[in-house]
Amino acid sequence: MNAADSRFPVSERSNGALAARVRGSVHVIGAGLLGASVGLGLRERGVDVTLEDLSPTTVALAADYGAGRVRTSEDPEPTLVVVATPPDVTADVVERALAQYPAAVVTDVASVKLAPYLELVRRGVDLTNYVGSHPMAGRERGGAIMARADLFVARPWVVCRDHETPAEALAIVEAVALDLGATLIEMTPEEHDRSVGLVSHLPQVVSSLLAARLIPATEQAIGLAGAGLRDTTRVASSDPELWVQILGANRGPVVELLDAFARDLSGFADALRDPAQAGARRTIADLLSAGNNGVARIPGKHGSSERFTSITVLIDDTPGQLGRLLTELGELGINMEDLRLEHSPGAQIGFAEIAMLPEVAERAVTDLVERGWRTL
Amino acid sequence: MNAADSRFPVSERSNGALAARVRGSVHVIGAGLLGASVGLGLRERGVDVTLEDLSPTTVALAADYGAGRVRTSEDPEPTLVVVATPPDVTADVVERALAQYPAAVVTDVASVKLAPYLELVRRGVDLTNYVGSHPMAGRERGGAIMARADLFVARPWVVCRDHETPAEALAIVEAVALDLGATLIEMTPEEHDRSVGLVSHLPQVVSSLLAARLIPATEQAIGLAGAGLRDTTRVASSDPELWVQILGANRGPVVELLDAFARDLSGFADALRDPAQAGARRTIADLLSAGNNGVARIPGKHGSSERFTSITVLIDDTPGQLGRLLTELGELGINMEDLRLEHSPGAQIGFAEIAMLPEVAERAVTDLVERGWRTL
Repeated sequence: MNAADSRFPVSERSNGALAARVRGSVHVIGAGLLGASVGLGLRERGVDVTLEDLSPTTVALAADYGAGRVRTSEDPEPTLVVVATPPDVTADVVERALAQYPAAVVTDVASVKLAPYLELVRRGVDLTNYVGSHPMAGRERGGAIMARADLFVARPWVVCRDHETPAEALAIVEAVALDLGATLIEMTPEEHDRSVGLVSHLPQVVSSLLAARLIPATEQAIGLAGAGLRDTTRVASSDPELWVQILGANRGPVVELLDAFARDLSGFADALRDPAQAGARRTIADLLSAGNNGVARIPGKHGSSERFTSITVLIDDTPGQLGRLLTELGELGINMEDLRLEHSPGAQIGFAEIAMLPEVAERAVTDLVERGWRTL
Repeated sequence: MNAADSRFPVSERSNGALAARVRGSVHVIGAGLLGASVGLGLRERGVDVTLEDLSPTTVALAADYGAGRVRTSEDPEPTLVVVATPPDVTADVVERALAQYPAAVVTDVASVKLAPYLELVRRGVDLTNYVGSHPMAGRERGGAIMARADLFVARPWVVCRDHETPAEALAIVEAVALDLGATLIEMTPEEHDRSVGLVSHLPQVVSSLLAARLIPATEQAIGLAGAGLRDTTRVASSDPELWVQILGANRGPVVELLDAFARDLSGFADALRDPAQAGARRTIADLLSAGNNGVARIPGKHGSSERFTSITVLIDDTPGQLGRLLTELGELGINMEDLRLEHSPGAQIGFAEIAMLPEVAERAVTDLVERGWRTL
């Protein structure tokens, strides 16, 4: 494999699963970030994609970007319909699609799965041809203009089935996920919503509330902020309008998690408030240790420093400086597992914290220092 | 300035403030990460540094690393004493140092400032020669073995004075901070503790409790974790023993902040619980928007995407690949403002999210794609 190939592992991992299954077309309803990205990805695999959106401008834009062609009344019934609308209209649009295209499999990509499903059941809709799904992909900014064929590459894609889901319907939706490069995970809607409540919705609320606390702070206090505050509040910059919908649609699990978190917080505050209370210090230490253990469970993250050692290298803030450092690491045969950059406000200097396997860290420092780098 | 120089801006920024002021020696009590780093930094500036620690092994190790020499009873009285012990013994050690070296200025580097000060006042200690300080520097792992002369470079260093602090005592402590490359900030002990409570202690507790919630989660749920969870829980891997001390010593402000945060959380949960309640949706949207505004106040952070635009480039997980990307960005004259890496568990592929000025982002994407890179 040459260097150019190694930059593009996508096509190597594609198995053309969908192209083999879909004889007709895929119809995408909702031509925003996710819908247009599905269209772009499938078009790259040679699938015929039609598009539809409430906004004529949006659908025309997505078509211009190559995500598919605008669907007309002459088009034959699609094999698969992908509903990629905002979560609060997902059930409506799925119901309409099932009625309009009775032979098609219908899926959706909403980030909550139980509420739309229960709403469809409540309405008595026949869900034989419906398979809900949720690709764990997204960007801070939405819209077709940000869409990319590679948006789903190597991301988890949850597919929700029940015991009545026909194998062929499931296979078509899973083929889409695989063709777009995603990693498949099967869950029930309940499992999905509880899971994303914990790993995505709770952190979002906590981060937003923490960031909101900074509004009345003095300039001086905020001047003491370090990487800890920056990391903890990063997702607080997400789109409020989208999150009102997501949190509303996953109300049950999120409220339960928020209540439990509030209890944890009160228990912690009480132990801290009254140090004379028996075991107060122990309660605090146990909760902080539990945090150590919890963070160590997150896959693909290297901050827990269980598996990796970090070294910190001083760099200046000029273009190419970090590139030179990483190129030299490559020359030294050091595989970087993670990298974090920190800038010092007001100083023309930065810190690159590089995670690597513990057995190579000492050599990395020695070799870098020998080459004139300064490590902390 | 040639490339080699530009890697070492430290010495250029040093003004030798301390070397001019300190005629005698600096005595460091507590030869852990901070104490040994102070010693190393001052030794590099030609200052005579003596060391002391409860542990003979620790002090010998710090001396071996070049942080100073072990103090003996023959040594004359130092000009400055730096107390770098754990926070729960800071007041004791400061009191003893003031008694033992009546002509010396005494400072400490504890991460809480009011509790040790009040304890000293309560004991009736004459604090004319005492100036508390707090360098905002540290690493996940402590100990002399992790110490570095550059630990304080470009970090905020808070110096706490009151109206009785003599100008000369203050000047000596500030000269140390400047000589070690830090940025000086003057605050009262109360201001300091409230500030670090908000920007450091509250985020630590929230992050730890959030990570602790992951312990009972299923493997499948944690498999859905993305960058949001990783960022939000990163500081949860900090040392529990140290944090028990820090939080205990800053009990008042931290409890107040935790209580306020718990109220925010309950208000949010209540609005989510009862969507029929008047203005519930608005309450949620307002709190999420407040999070947007809060995160935008953090200096030197680029996650709020107010000032910078991010592009995402696909890279594979081989040594040197990221280096090549950043080198090419340098060749294109693109100054990277921030960089975040994300790995996909189970896939030989990573994402580099690169923040830059909005006006160069489009050109960066075009030029990178032209050079064969894949952007998302």
